Amino acid sequence: MLIVQKFGGTSVATLERIRACARRCIASSQQGHQLVVVVSAMAGETNRLLSLANDLVRLGRGEQGMPDKGPYVAASGAGDRVHERELDQLVSTGENVSAALLSMAIHDLGGDSISLVGHQIGMITDGRYTNARIQELRGERIRREVEAGKIVVCAGFQGLDAEGNITTLGRGGSDTSAVALAAAIGADVCEIYTDVDGVYTTDPRIEPKARKVAEITCEEMLELSSLGAKILQIRSVAFAMKYGVAVHVRSSLNESEGTWIVSEYRSMEAPVVVGLALDRNEAKVTLTNVPDVPGVAAVVFNRLAEAGVVVDMIIQNASRDGATDLTFTVPESDLDRSVRELESLDFPRCEELLIIKDPDICKISIVGVGMRSHSGIAAKAFQIMATEGINIQMVSTSEIKVSVVVQERYGELALRALHAGFGLADEA
Amino acid sequence: MLIVQKFGGTSVATLERIRACARRCIASSQQGHQLVVVVSAMAGETNRLLSLANDLVRLGRGEQGMPDKGPYVAASGAGDRVHERELDQLVSTGENVSAALLSMAIHDLGGDSISLVGHQIGMITDGRYTNARIQELRGERIRREVEAGKIVVCAGFQGLDAEGNITTLGRGGSDTSAVALAAAIGADVCEIYTDVDGVYTTDPRIEPKARKVAEITCEEMLELSSLGAKILQIRSVAFAMKYGVAVHVRSSLNESEGTWIVSEYRSMEAPVVVGLALDRNEAKVTLTNVPDVPGVAAVVFNRLAEAGVVVDMIIQNASRDGATDLTFTVPESDLDRSVRELESLDFPRCEELLIIKDPDICKISIVGVGMRSHSGIAAKAFQIMATEGINIQMVSTSEIKVSVVVQERYGELALRALHAGFGLADEA
Repeated sequence: MLIVQKFGGTSVATLERIRACARRCIASSQQGHQLVVVVSAMAGETNRLLSLANDLVRLGRGEQGMPDKGPYVAASGAGDRVHERELDQLVSTGENVSAALLSMAIHDLGGDSISLVGHQIGMITDGRYTNARIQELRGERIRREVEAGKIVVCAGFQGLDAEGNITTLGRGGSDTSAVALAAAIGADVCEIYTDVDGVYTTDPRIEPKARKVAEITCEEMLELSSLGAKILQIRSVAFAMKYGVAVHVRSSLNESEGTWIVSEYRSMEAPVVVGLALDRNEAKVTLTNVPDVPGVAAVVFNRLAEAGVVVDMIIQNASRDGATDLTFTVPESDLDRSVRELESLDFPRCEELLIIKDPDICKISIVGVGMRSHSGIAAKAFQIMATEGINIQMVSTSEIKVSVVVQERYGELALRALHAGFGLADEA
Repeated sequence: MLIVQKFGGTSVATLERIRACARRCIASSQQGHQLVVVVSAMAGETNRLLSLANDLVRLGRGEQGMPDKGPYVAASGAGDRVHERELDQLVSTGENVSAALLSMAIHDLGGDSISLVGHQIGMITDGRYTNARIQELRGERIRREVEAGKIVVCAGFQGLDAEGNITTLGRGGSDTSAVALAAAIGADVCEIYTDVDGVYTTDPRIEPKARKVAEITCEEMLELSSLGAKILQIRSVAFAMKYGVAVHVRSSLNESEGTWIVSEYRSMEAPVVVGLALDRNEAKVTLTNVPDVPGVAAVVFNRLAEAGVVVDMIIQNASRDGATDLTFTVPESDLDRSVRELESLDFPRCEELLIIKDPDICKISIVGVGMRSHSGIAAKAFQIMATEGINIQMVSTSEIKVSVVVQERYGELALRALHAGFGLADEA
């Protein structure tokens, strides 16, 4: 088989772990597989490099007697675009270092290997520094080295724009590198090594009975990723879905099977509910007495979009007396900014309009492609929560997902009740 | 003017110094100059990266219960060639980091800048990893960015081979990068910023009366570099000579003029003697009673060449009774190995042959292009040393140089005597 293996920052955090990765690569190679490896920077290295950049600018503020405006890197106004190019030139070196070291370790253990970085890999992206999108992968060099029997170690996270400037793919971008690379070279599987065993039915820190699933579809994974599961960069899953790459998420600490992220369930009927996610980082905004005339919602959400606020759930209640209530959720960190934006809006005829903000909510999502053929999942969820006496504030459903918003303090209780109620608990 | 400025590792050792370099760049730019900057890695960074490689391999020796054979990086047998490729992929990142940081600092101070690394610079080398030779410099990108008004910051020390593999130019390679780049883009001057004020008539730590020279020719600099002056990588001087690049060595700590390294003296008549060098790292080998037949010297020096020993001075005495003495110098670190090689030689008819080694010698060289038109320099040197009672063991002369070998303990005394005798001392 032609396998892409991706090792994250914790898997290459020390020289000892790099040697452990090298042993695993050689073992795969000795089983007759062709191997392309994608590595992240050694854990902590990307932050070290970002700190250098931050400290450099902080130093300048000190010299000029200016107040320290906080981290430079977080600033992302248009004026910082040029800096972002230099940031990418800077932080991409972290992956170059770990790629070279892993290749050396493989050599040292008797394997044949070569490390490749940005311009050698041929990953072409757009020019959006620090968060670039892959446009094309020219895999000739990789294919040539694989055919020559080498274990090819690629620096993840980075690409080149059409002009040859270095770009990076955003935090977790090495996952996307790995999946894109697997797609480009037609790999049989993309193995993502991480410090967890695989994908669980829910966060085991909240529900100890959470169970590792053997398979999950990309669609489901996308819903779970965007809702807070931190195992894979969400874009890598979208890539896997688009190009039909089979992804196997597994532990770098043992040999056991992890979770396969697939286009369609292979070995069994699709479960009705595959997993639950809890997102505590949402906040709720309610606009009461909004004039119920066409265009008001557009005004509200256009203003928020212009301000860069990503709105998640939106609910509009039935109208009474020519006015309505509009409720929606935004990231908790954007709550105050969102309210300020809305207060500056000039609504037509709306002296009674009130803006109510509530940071103390959370969202629970119930995900499963089996919902397509099973009705009554939402009703069952409502019943389970009613039994626990938990009030539901908002509901949103899609083909494969039911999301409910509840008071933040009931979040974990609701999650555990739903986990048991939908039969997700570990049998053992 | 179009200026190339090179900042070494100590000049970019800290974020404070990087900001100081940035201020200097902006000042040059504001004087109306077009600017290309070449940087080394932050002092200590290259060694940190090499240590990672060393420790990685040392770890493996420990796991396998093998003896620690000393630093991995020093091993340079043919079997390590592939490792050397990975070493270059690794250590080149040090320059990428400092280039990005300097460019950020320039931005932060209000300048316009862009950093370029290996594939963006277009420095094409041969494939001799860790010690590559420049073959071609495709300066289009640099020229384009300069024309656009940017201060272009290039990562020094590195190139690409024809296949796109990263190569490095050997220790001090950033000097060579800078001079090659100055040649490729037709710069008016290549300024090398360092932690000394310029080139001195001799090492000021030995002779406090040593005087900074305003000009020196490439030829003279080559003789002084190879004899122990550590200011510039010797290959950069050869490059400057070949392409007629004017190099200005100056301090990064002040604004004063340093030393111009030029093709021909511009402002004055060539001095007869421009400088003196003392090399303590040589050792002497004498073969006595060597059969005086053709081919013996060839056998001796071929064997040493095959063993990779660089022989410097060679003297053969007049023959008596069909036998002769052969004396030569080698690097002190190669002395024992050289003797072992010679002991294994099968000389024809030479039972009386003795191999005598002497590590306690040093070489003093007197350099100046003015010797071409002035006779009697060697005689004057001998007279000066005789006055001090110093015995001369070996003599070698070239067009612009007289070298003498003396007992090591007389080296500094001889140097000071010659410095005074040839009128090199600072007048002040």
